[in-house]
Amino acid sequence: MKITILTMFPSLFESFLLSPVLKRTIDRGYITLDIVDIKDYANGSFRHIDDSPCGGGPGMILKVDVVMRALESVKNSSSHTVLLSPKGKTLDQKRVRELSQMEDLVFICGHYEGVDARVEKRVDEMLSIGDYITTGGEVAVMVIIDAISRLQKGIIREGATEDESHENGLLEYPQYTKPIDYNGDKVPEILLSGNHGAIERYRHREALLLTKELRPDMFARYNLSEEERQLIEET
Amino acid sequence: MKITILTMFPSLFESFLLSPVLKRTIDRGYITLDIVDIKDYANGSFRHIDDSPCGGGPGMILKVDVVMRALESVKNSSSHTVLLSPKGKTLDQKRVRELSQMEDLVFICGHYEGVDARVEKRVDEMLSIGDYITTGGEVAVMVIIDAISRLQKGIIREGATEDESHENGLLEYPQYTKPIDYNGDKVPEILLSGNHGAIERYRHREALLLTKELRPDMFARYNLSEEERQLIEET
Repeated sequence: MKITILTMFPSLFESFLLSPVLKRTIDRGYITLDIVDIKDYANGSFRHIDDSPCGGGPGMILKVDVVMRALESVKNSSSHTVLLSPKGKTLDQKRVRELSQMEDLVFICGHYEGVDARVEKRVDEMLSIGDYITTGGEVAVMVIIDAISRLQKGIIREGATEDESHENGLLEYPQYTKPIDYNGDKVPEILLSGNHGAIERYRHREALLLTKELRPDMFARYNLSEEERQLIEET
Repeated sequence: MKITILTMFPSLFESFLLSPVLKRTIDRGYITLDIVDIKDYANGSFRHIDDSPCGGGPGMILKVDVVMRALESVKNSSSHTVLLSPKGKTLDQKRVRELSQMEDLVFICGHYEGVDARVEKRVDEMLSIGDYITTGGEVAVMVIIDAISRLQKGIIREGATEDESHENGLLEYPQYTKPIDYNGDKVPEILLSGNHGAIERYRHREALLLTKELRPDMFARYNLSEEERQLIEET
């Protein structure tokens, strides 16, 4: 897949491009990543990319003409264009899966105090990674690309993502590794039993209980079977 | 404030440290940022930092003894320790504000397929930035530090953050800047009127309408006054 990032700060992505998983997807040709500097699309002798808000108020607003010149120069008919914005739909793992299947993604990083609202209707989608405010879309785009990159076929071992949090509607069961005894705090015995059926049952029960305790909202959406209901009630 | 990041990939943060706002907080001495390599705390001749999960399954689990050695070496009695985890409470702007007031924050980036569950009870807090899975906590920590850095006093102009999305429970009103006419798509006339009272009223109405349309969940939580109810109903 091809990913293009429109940003005012291309250099911020330099070390991100070396993240182990992303680098593997790029080296293997699964993802082509282009980083385009919005500043290159500023016109006029002052090369302004932003200006003060109409109607007054603090901050500088990224100009619609500059952003659209940059966007038009990189997109084609198959591009899916995404503006990172607090107004966007909140990202979840389902949307990450959908984005990971696309051919050509273009992300626009807003920055400073805002982006001219006329950009908003000229993109296919607005996305937010959560209900908090960052200085710009750059860190949000890194999160999305990181999440997409690990879903590329052959990057993470087959089967490794199925039990993960959010993939099956539950949080993941607790994981343990050596040392078996850490200052008296021991790995649950059942995990050392070699009884695969019992281990699977234990893990599934833990995933259900953890989700119920820590994320009642996720648990409420989960379609609990009668068998699972009984599993939870066992002592 | 002091921020320490425990990670297996310190080099991933190199260009992040140059983000304009974060760099300003560091240059002015508001934030001291230490990046610590978890690999330096591995013991034994093989220097393993991770191992296969007890009970079987794919992936490698970050070892509790290695993480705790790293954590103990950097934390002191006033440190607030945070493990990035899908099991954590979901970050929101209120929590960002609270974190931004702390003296000493230590973030632990999980990586690979998981972290030994015994780490989870040895930290003050588990945090998640959203319901999706990244390759590790690194990008999540960048999001949190970016969000914290812009709230440091004197970094962003006084008053500039009050109307922002999530700060007052509403999405921000639409912002516009020059050109006034972009291919026939014009800035709303009222914003050019110079009538500050009318502009403020227009913007507040737009913020209410936008939130109602795009984020009915936020709107439902918002404490709508009688005056605001009338403002929305005006045509």
